[in-house]
Amino acid sequence: MRVSELVERSGLPLATIKYYLREGILMPGEPTSATQSSYGPQHLRRLALIKALAGAGLPIPRIRAIVRLTDEPVDRLYDTLGRAVANLPPYLDGRDDCPEADHPRARRVLERLGQVYEPAFPAVGQLERALKAVEDIGLPMTVDRLDTYGRHIQAIAEFDIAHLPVGSTEAAVEYAVLGTAVYEPVLAALRRLAHQDIASRTLPEPGDRPAPDA
Amino acid sequence: MRVSELVERSGLPLATIKYYLREGILMPGEPTSATQSSYGPQHLRRLALIKALAGAGLPIPRIRAIVRLTDEPVDRLYDTLGRAVANLPPYLDGRDDCPEADHPRARRVLERLGQVYEPAFPAVGQLERALKAVEDIGLPMTVDRLDTYGRHIQAIAEFDIAHLPVGSTEAAVEYAVLGTAVYEPVLAALRRLAHQDIASRTLPEPGDRPAPDA
Repeated sequence: MRVSELVERSGLPLATIKYYLREGILMPGEPTSATQSSYGPQHLRRLALIKALAGAGLPIPRIRAIVRLTDEPVDRLYDTLGRAVANLPPYLDGRDDCPEADHPRARRVLERLGQVYEPAFPAVGQLERALKAVEDIGLPMTVDRLDTYGRHIQAIAEFDIAHLPVGSTEAAVEYAVLGTAVYEPVLAALRRLAHQDIASRTLPEPGDRPAPDA
Repeated sequence: MRVSELVERSGLPLATIKYYLREGILMPGEPTSATQSSYGPQHLRRLALIKALAGAGLPIPRIRAIVRLTDEPVDRLYDTLGRAVANLPPYLDGRDDCPEADHPRARRVLERLGQVYEPAFPAVGQLERALKAVEDIGLPMTVDRLDTYGRHIQAIAEFDIAHLPVGSTEAAVEYAVLGTAVYEPVLAALRRLAHQDIASRTLPEPGDRPAPDA
């Protein structure tokens, strides 16, 4: 297809597509003349991925790192996916980003959950920062809360991984980065609505008498 | 205590504390002279709440709405908490924020989960937007995925509500808004780390032969 059709089918302006070509995150088309190129389904698919990543707040260098991994995967699928997902926000500041930095809160939590503590994983730094915020406001991350959160998040993550398409690296990377990014807001909104639903059934009304002893 | 001690114990600069006083989100102290006031533990507690909310990205008018609800709760605790939590980000643009707007994707999901669909709840608009993003990238929100997510998020939310301190409105509002805000990044980081943990055990290695038929 010509670039005009790529504009129409991707829903992206011509200037944006040219920008992605210049930045090397959209692969070039097949030249058909000195000024025209021909594009195929792989260009549409790549544009959909770029659009979704840009929409999730990723800057161009992070998007470039991800598309490069789909084109040139590293040896193990596990490593390719880990490196791809590591480009997702939230980004930590330089100090936290340092691979040698220790994350004591995250380490304790992961030990309790029986998971490997690998301080170089960005999500470990994200967990540390999130646990620090919990501590700062004086809402304790009790062992009970951690065990409950950990058990149910584990079940959700098992569903996610069970549905990972392992046949194609490109599809696996897309699922891993996009699935991580787009389902997080879904899960957060579902939790808020579940709070509302449960609270509407269980919170005391102004006229409620204390419950009699059972 | 004098304002200098409030500075020291809250960890906030004097200029910030004066700003919160001017904005009316920190209640005034007890005047002890023409130029000095005395402050108590309620001021420290309020400052900790404001600091945490500002750290979670809330602008002053949203913080004001929350602290006003702790001072002047509405009739039912359920309504007070619902109005307080509605001030948390993410904020939707004007169109989505319109209480009359229909949220068809969120409605279908909530019907499936057996929860009330109330389009005026901000979290319903947040869910709709999140589901739209999922749809746009072509990762289907299947019934299986929804049922799995819904069941486990429900269990997490039940734990949250079971630990809500209902004895004091102030404590309940603090727990509801701060707990909603600070545990979301914890849950997101735990999910990413669970993905990594499960993937390290289940993803195929480059040398793996296809599994024989069972």
